[in-house]
Parts: sequence; C-alpha cells; structure tokens
Amino acid sequence: MTRHLMSQFDADLNEIRAKLLEMGGKVEKMIHDAMKSLVERNTELAASTIEYDHEINRLEVEIDERCLEVLALRQPTARDLRFITLALKIVTDLERIGDQCRNIAKRARELNELPPLKPYIDLPRMAIIAAAMVTEALDAFVRGDDQMAYAVCRRDSEVDLLNEQIQRELLTFMIEDTSTITRAIKITAIAKCLERVADHATNVAEMVIFMVKGKDIRHIAFDAE
Amino acid sequence: MTRHLMSQFDADLNEIRAKLLEMGGKVEKMIHDAMKSLVERNTELAASTIEYDHEINRLEVEIDERCLEVLALRQPTARDLRFITLALKIVTDLERIGDQCRNIAKRARELNELPPLKPYIDLPRMAIIAAAMVTEALDAFVRGDDQMAYAVCRRDSEVDLLNEQIQRELLTFMIEDTSTITRAIKITAIAKCLERVADHATNVAEMVIFMVKGKDIRHIAFDAE
Repeated sequence: MTRHLMSQFDADLNEIRAKLLEMGGKVEKMIHDAMKSLVERNTELAASTIEYDHEINRLEVEIDERCLEVLALRQPTARDLRFITLALKIVTDLERIGDQCRNIAKRARELNELPPLKPYIDLPRMAIIAAAMVTEALDAFVRGDDQMAYAVCRRDSEVDLLNEQIQRELLTFMIEDTSTITRAIKITAIAKCLERVADHATNVAEMVIFMVKGKDIRHIAFDAE
Repeated sequence: MTRHLMSQFDADLNEIRAKLLEMGGKVEKMIHDAMKSLVERNTELAASTIEYDHEINRLEVEIDERCLEVLALRQPTARDLRFITLALKIVTDLERIGDQCRNIAKRARELNELPPLKPYIDLPRMAIIAAAMVTEALDAFVRGDDQMAYAVCRRDSEVDLLNEQIQRELLTFMIEDTSTITRAIKITAIAKCLERVADHATNVAEMVIFMVKGKDIRHIAFDAE
C-alpha cells in the first residue's frame, strides 16, 4: 500500500515537473514570437501572441490546482513539500513572463504602424539571452542543480548591460531628432520588458539555489518535528 | 482532541496572517524611507534603507518556513490550503517590493552626490499611491475582500499614468540640456521602481480576487475528491 502510494505520489510530482516544463516551453515560444512579430513587422503574429497569453494563464491555473490537489491528497513532507511550494512560486513567475511577452507584442503591433526607426540588433540578442535564462532556470529547478542556477543569475547582468546600452542609444536618437520620440519610447519599453523577463528567470534561479543550498540547514528544522 | 487541533491550527493561520501584515508594514516603511532619503537628500537614511532589506528577506524566509511547517504538520485542505499557498506567493511579491525600495535608495544615494535637478512632486505622489496599494492589497487578502482587491487593481493605472508623465517630463529636460541626462535617467529609474511596486501590489490583489471569486467553482473540485 505504501509502495503503491509512493509511486502514485512520484507520478504526481513527475506530472507537475512535466507541466512546468511544458509551460516553460510555451513561454519561450511567446518570447520568440513576440520578438519575431517586431523584427519582421508581422502584426498578425503580434495579435496571435497577445491571444496566446490566455494559454499561459490557463496553464498557471492548471498547475496551481494540481499542486494544491497533491498537497491536499498526498500530504507530502520535507523535500517534496518544498518542491511543490516552489513549483507554486515558479508558476507565478512564468505567468508574469507571459504578461511581459504580451506587452512586447502590443508595442510591436503599434510600431508596425509606424516607419521603421532602425534595424533591431541588440534587442533580439537580449531576447535570446532572456529566453535561454528562462529555460535554464527551469532546468535547474527540475534537476535541483544549483550550479546551473548560479549561471542564470550571472547572466542577468549581461541583460542589464544590454538594456542600458539600448536606453542610451535610443536617447541619442530622441535628442538628435525629436520626431523619433514616440517610436524610441516604445522600443525602450520593449527592452524593459525583456529585462523583466530576465529578472523573473533570475528570481526562479535564486529560489532554486535556496532550495538546494538551504536544504540541509532547513531540513533539520523539519526532521526535528 | 479535534477541537484542540482546530484551535491550534487557527492560531497557526493567525500567526501567518499577523506575520504577513508585519512584513507589509515593514515594506511600507521601506517605501517611505527610500523616498524620504531622496526628497530630503538624506544619504544616511538611504544607507540604512538599503541595509533594512535584509530584514525583509529574513521575514520572507521566516514566513515561508512557517507556511511549510503548517502544511506539513496540519495538512490543511480546501480553503485553508488555498490561504497558505497564497500567503507563500504574496510573501514573494513583498520581498520583491523590498528589492525595488533598495534600488530606489541606491539611486537616491547617487543623486544626493549631484546637484538637485528639480523639486520632486509627482514622484512622492506615485510613492504614496503605491504604498497605499500594498497596504490595501494585503488587507484585502487578510479579509478575503475582493471588492477591496478590485479597487487596488484600478489604482494601478493611476501609477502608470504618473510614471508616463514623469518619463515625458524628464525626457524634455534631457533634450533641452544634455548635462541633465545622468540625473534624469536615475530619476526615471526610480519612477520605474515605483511602478513595479504598484505592479506587485496589483499582482497580490489579482490573486486575492481569484482566491475569493474562484472559490466556489474551485471548491467543488476539492470537495469531489
């Protein structure tokens, strides 16, 4: 009976793990599509990306519910409990990354109505790094790999630097030619969205480090009960 | 025995509730102090506000641990389970508001080294609204009051408007006199921090609405088990 319960419980945890990775993959797709809609001036893709955010929100609710069910039915302790509560927190970050992608797609849709300001070079680079950070933070969580999580945190400053560089460059445009202001502000907003995507990935990575590194110290408190 | 357990469990929930409100109060103080250090050019206060973030982080860990203990020991179901898992999520938002306040204090410390650019008028207004939103979002959670939570969400657009207004105004400064750029960018960053504080409050409020409004529908799924 215990064995049966255990394996059912493992199946539950695996399901949560798989759903989180699925959500991560969809969020990554959203980053990619939002940026593509901007770079290729594809307003249809921008619209479908905005629409796609519902799918991310749906997955958030689904994973939240699944975690609550597992908590209620299986009453996990120690490590598994920590895993599930962290999953609950990570899902929130993923959902908010979806919100940022929706914002990028909205700005892209607006920019597609205006003449191009300049070719996008740093912005897609920023997006590639931010998307990789999301994937790696989730991988670090699923594997419980703190070294991988540390690597994600380190990459955050790359994104911050790119963001500052973009802000400065666009400021130069605005100062030299005030007719660029509206467009430059929208592009600035997109860079900020990407910076926030990277921040969410970093937050996930930090929580993973705490889960892995804090494990031993915090474990004692649990086992002592 | 059941009665004893029930009342102990209620005490646990009350403790989590109280700790969350305590953390909320401290976060509010941090918003207030960070802004005061800017407006009154008080670098010492900026330094102590940066330092104070450790207290917020400590509370985050403490509340997280308490929630996990209650989950492990009392194995709550349905409504109480939902309350605790939401508390876990809210704590993360509060901690991130602390991070934003620390960023504001850092920018304040830098700005205090430079000549004043202009009197701050909109920025303190933004801070007052953002701080009120944090308090009200937490109150809405503790009371389970969705109407109060809706009111918080509505105020978010006030903050966004103020932020846009500040960004535009500072842009004018930068265009008219490029020697203001460094300072204007720092003030812009502070406005963005406040906007993110309001976003976190809104996120909390949205989760409260979901907790209250989604209750009936989602309750059924739980009772059916």
